[in-house]
Amino acid sequence: MDFFFAPKGIALIGATRKLKGGYAILYNLKKGFNGPVYPINPRYDEIDGTTCYPSVADVPDPVDLAIVFIPAPKVPAILLECAKRGIKGAMIESAGFAETGPEGKKLQDEIIAIAKETGLRLWGPNCMGLVDAKAGHVFSFVSPTIWDEGLIKGDVSLIVQSGMLSGGFLTDTMTHGTMGVSKVCSIGNKADVSEIDLLEYMIDDPKTGAVAAYLESLPQGRRFMELCRRSPKPIVVLKGGKSEKGAQAAMSHTASMAGNGAVIAGALAQAGVVEAVDFKQMMDLARTVGFYPDIKADQPGRIAILTYSGGAGIMSADFLDEFGLKVADLAPKTIAKLATVYPEWMPPNNPVDLWPGVEKNGGPIVYSTALEAVAHDENVDAILMHAFVGRAGFGPDMEQLVDIAQKAGKPIFVWLIGGREEARKLHQAVQAKGVPVYRELYRAVECMAAAFNRGKMQASVVREQAPVPEPSGKLKGLLAGAAGVMDEHISKKILAQAGIPVVEEKLVASLGQALDAAKTMGFPLVAKGMIGGQVHKTEKGLVHLNITDSQGLEKAFDKLINAGAENILVQKQCAPGVEIIAGLVRDPQFGPCVMVGLGGVYAEVLNDRAFALAPLAEKEALALIDRLAHQKLLNGFRGLLPVDRKALASTLVALSQLGMQFEEIAEIDINPLIAAPGGLMAVDAS
Amino acid sequence: MDFFFAPKGIALIGATRKLKGGYAILYNLKKGFNGPVYPINPRYDEIDGTTCYPSVADVPDPVDLAIVFIPAPKVPAILLECAKRGIKGAMIESAGFAETGPEGKKLQDEIIAIAKETGLRLWGPNCMGLVDAKAGHVFSFVSPTIWDEGLIKGDVSLIVQSGMLSGGFLTDTMTHGTMGVSKVCSIGNKADVSEIDLLEYMIDDPKTGAVAAYLESLPQGRRFMELCRRSPKPIVVLKGGKSEKGAQAAMSHTASMAGNGAVIAGALAQAGVVEAVDFKQMMDLARTVGFYPDIKADQPGRIAILTYSGGAGIMSADFLDEFGLKVADLAPKTIAKLATVYPEWMPPNNPVDLWPGVEKNGGPIVYSTALEAVAHDENVDAILMHAFVGRAGFGPDMEQLVDIAQKAGKPIFVWLIGGREEARKLHQAVQAKGVPVYRELYRAVECMAAAFNRGKMQASVVREQAPVPEPSGKLKGLLAGAAGVMDEHISKKILAQAGIPVVEEKLVASLGQALDAAKTMGFPLVAKGMIGGQVHKTEKGLVHLNITDSQGLEKAFDKLINAGAENILVQKQCAPGVEIIAGLVRDPQFGPCVMVGLGGVYAEVLNDRAFALAPLAEKEALALIDRLAHQKLLNGFRGLLPVDRKALASTLVALSQLGMQFEEIAEIDINPLIAAPGGLMAVDAS
Repeated sequence: MDFFFAPKGIALIGATRKLKGGYAILYNLKKGFNGPVYPINPRYDEIDGTTCYPSVADVPDPVDLAIVFIPAPKVPAILLECAKRGIKGAMIESAGFAETGPEGKKLQDEIIAIAKETGLRLWGPNCMGLVDAKAGHVFSFVSPTIWDEGLIKGDVSLIVQSGMLSGGFLTDTMTHGTMGVSKVCSIGNKADVSEIDLLEYMIDDPKTGAVAAYLESLPQGRRFMELCRRSPKPIVVLKGGKSEKGAQAAMSHTASMAGNGAVIAGALAQAGVVEAVDFKQMMDLARTVGFYPDIKADQPGRIAILTYSGGAGIMSADFLDEFGLKVADLAPKTIAKLATVYPEWMPPNNPVDLWPGVEKNGGPIVYSTALEAVAHDENVDAILMHAFVGRAGFGPDMEQLVDIAQKAGKPIFVWLIGGREEARKLHQAVQAKGVPVYRELYRAVECMAAAFNRGKMQASVVREQAPVPEPSGKLKGLLAGAAGVMDEHISKKILAQAGIPVVEEKLVASLGQALDAAKTMGFPLVAKGMIGGQVHKTEKGLVHLNITDSQGLEKAFDKLINAGAENILVQKQCAPGVEIIAGLVRDPQFGPCVMVGLGGVYAEVLNDRAFALAPLAEKEALALIDRLAHQKLLNGFRGLLPVDRKALASTLVALSQLGMQFEEIAEIDINPLIAAPGGLMAVDAS
Repeated sequence: MDFFFAPKGIALIGATRKLKGGYAILYNLKKGFNGPVYPINPRYDEIDGTTCYPSVADVPDPVDLAIVFIPAPKVPAILLECAKRGIKGAMIESAGFAETGPEGKKLQDEIIAIAKETGLRLWGPNCMGLVDAKAGHVFSFVSPTIWDEGLIKGDVSLIVQSGMLSGGFLTDTMTHGTMGVSKVCSIGNKADVSEIDLLEYMIDDPKTGAVAAYLESLPQGRRFMELCRRSPKPIVVLKGGKSEKGAQAAMSHTASMAGNGAVIAGALAQAGVVEAVDFKQMMDLARTVGFYPDIKADQPGRIAILTYSGGAGIMSADFLDEFGLKVADLAPKTIAKLATVYPEWMPPNNPVDLWPGVEKNGGPIVYSTALEAVAHDENVDAILMHAFVGRAGFGPDMEQLVDIAQKAGKPIFVWLIGGREEARKLHQAVQAKGVPVYRELYRAVECMAAAFNRGKMQASVVREQAPVPEPSGKLKGLLAGAAGVMDEHISKKILAQAGIPVVEEKLVASLGQALDAAKTMGFPLVAKGMIGGQVHKTEKGLVHLNITDSQGLEKAFDKLINAGAENILVQKQCAPGVEIIAGLVRDPQFGPCVMVGLGGVYAEVLNDRAFALAPLAEKEALALIDRLAHQKLLNGFRGLLPVDRKALASTLVALSQLGMQFEEIAEIDINPLIAAPGGLMAVDAS
């Protein structure tokens, strides 16, 4: 892929003297690309002093990349010429392919066939190409205004699928000049080069520190997640089409499976990826985790807030609470040091309100003393600093201040307001030092939380997919005999064979057998009437609970037989416990996925479920359980026993392996799985 | 208060030739104030050509406002001079008062005493004063850079409490030039003039269309809410200190009661106020509801999304879903009209993806046709338009487009990205036409939702507080005989007398009485052992449920007597139903408040409760119930009856009246209030 990012020479097909895209590409190439650029256009000898060639065949060496910006119908022929000339990659920025309907789709299929045949790699079509701020490469028809601020270099590389959006977004980002980037790749229709190729490239790219991707579809979901979990670099993903209406819109837009939002969220978390919700927020998240990729899971996120405004300090404390971070309890020596620059009447505390001290002692000494103090406080994991430009005499030197934090090895995050241009310059200067600056306080705390949360996610990431053992012969045998929707008894036999604890039960055909079973199991019991194909037993009156003696069992037996039951399932009744649901689903994008959720009376109200891709290692299963929102229900709620997380994790691991071992299992649903005093127990399953 | 906003003449005490605050105030006054300005400074004859006076006494007429910017200790003497000279208001921008500790507090008390004695009104101290963009008044030491963009006029007036923050915030807002304002009032320590005075003034101010307030404390909470509920103008409030840590920080910052976040949220919603979470978001919300104050409760928020990017359309649909808005189902005639500018292969739909049409027919015709179509669609309540500047030839004329929507009377909201300066100019131009522009898509949808939600809130606002009837003599008698923590039987007697349905029950002392009671009530019954002062009956084993016959009652009676019960409360056992909690609390800021929440097994997990100030009118009570997050639990969940909302509302109204009628009732807690088949029923109360 190097010929796309660092070509030896570029043929520009569609170069023109007119002030249109073909001219903008040439302007952009000449402005920043150091190698030879060969405009191709039979109508000109030269454009702005650069020699023009009639065809690709005429272009001298070296040339390994073609940028193509001509009407779509002419593209296939040109690609053949490129391949013939020995060009390795073509970046097709023309529109008019699959995105324009069936005609365009045919054209796109045609160029894909050419690529396969000739080995020429295709980027696009229907894309904005590439901007590489570090190399100074703008291989794009994007407006030359993006040079106005210079190409602000940063460590975040971007992958953007949407065609039009990437153009607007790129112009917006670059002209604001407050967000540095490394490589920005607009991949359009992804006819050949996809997010997979680019992510792979960026993970190895020494000039990329973090990756942000806006994707509408994830057709190779598993492969994408595999790359993410292996990546030592932070990755942020924004995935559109998560709501029902959004997914419908995605369907009609790209005919792509938008997919189940909960499954995507689970897969991203499992792979240690930060999930974004909006475009600019994605950029803010990406530069944050790019600056601070090494926050560890054992750092609880205790934050020192340095502010010039008591009010903003209060708001910050509110936001930390909302995002699960903590207002740090400052160490006594920190308090003592702060007291040296505070007025006497004011006891230092966190949020550290510096204004009264500034009024007494001046900004510079108060700010630097306070920053020194909190930066060396062992109870502080990070610093949130409020800054403000535009008032004469306030003046702490922000760049010097962030140095103090950096020397102490403490992450610092800056919230900045003030006069437009002054603030923008300070924003750039501070960010150039590797410190993230935010213009909204809420966003600042949101991004801090993402950095700390990423540390926690990373601790549970399994770099290589967990191994899947060969299933036992017995399990294979059970599966071979089953087909269609299985009744709960057979389902549980399979689960038990897979190592999942299931409730003690016996299928009986006569009252005598039922009473025998009761003798072995002991009361209380449950009796269920089994009718072939009938799954909603409770609704059909086929379940009798709380059977405490033989008479009760007899009564229940008779009623069930009268209701048409073919057999009776006699089951040990579980003691009360937290009710959990667990299962296996097959996602069209991701394949086998494990689900865990809260069951019982809470299931429908809370809809608290979490997903992960199978197979699961134990620590992935434990992290999956941790992702449920209502953890307190698992921790011994209302007198119930706390859930045995290790046992639950092992059930989830077993489910994940079943999903990997047997493609013929379409779905497993254990509901409920009860965390009863005797241990975890699958009570019903299908 | 007119002398603060439109003074006849201004004495500037603390005017100076030095480039400090006192000079900035003079510069700002001369730049925009049309009346006479009299700098006071005995050391100068003139400053920059303006005659300087040695003292306030020497200033000629007319003069009714003094702006004071001298060291705090000198302020009291100057105020006395001002009052003597007949000046009506003093805007004290100097710091060094209550915010600096006990010494400053004394000084502040001194100036308050002077104000009371002389009738001089005080604004501040420790504040940034006033900026009035419409009048061109900058009565503030804020940096003259705020004139750089001109003072952008808008309809939103601002009240900001925090001293330092208001300066930074104001500079930030004004120099960005994309948010017009009317009056911006920084009120600092609120020694005399408070948010109450200003809100009152702004509600009547013809130049104010909407009010935004950032407040750290709400010491006159009830009065504030009273003004809000009467206001025909939209009001947005950001209240700091809602989390526990935030409230602690607020305590140490301003020694003010930060208050219970849930109570504040309830009071604001009841008064029809939009609640903000962050500073800039508050401004975005304020200009949104300022532009669209007339959206009605019966408009469900069906949105047409016009986009140049399928991807951004998908994201918009996701966000609409998240905020409770709807992707509009376009009418057939709209679809037909869209088809005229769409390519043949593409069926029009919502989100309306215009790009393929633009490629075929050009931007201007496609955009204007599409906008005409959706603007006249009866299934569309509002339009979300995506705009982008920076690509030549794309070019729909945004200003002309918003005209189409405005002519059709349809609210339009614009999300804009693009080159920094081009986008800023377009932002200004579109917003000057009364159309809100947003730079982040999520924020755009969040603000749209706020505008629609405000319509719903307004429908339930009661402009004048509901009347409270005189309590009956019987109720007064019951209350007169009670004191301390009441047992549940007495509590329920009081509730019943107040018109709240309570469970049928009888207090008995002997088994015979118990059996008699059972005869009257019928089984099943509950028996509770009453011990003076004992409130946790269930935990102490003093409650027996499911008593189905006389033997059971006898058994329970014996057990309770053995457990030390003095009397036995025999109660009709309620059939299962949705369990609700309802109560009355007294908030330190707001006084008597009614609470309603979800009870039973969900209480602790969901913590779903809503508050409102007493007294309640019926429609306020209904709206309070509507504010519970988990409405589906009230609507007939898992086979239970739907809750009778009218009956529940009437219970809440009765609770609210008890709170108003009897100051001696500190708290009422009904838990549970069961929505059983026989009707709503208070089962336990204290």
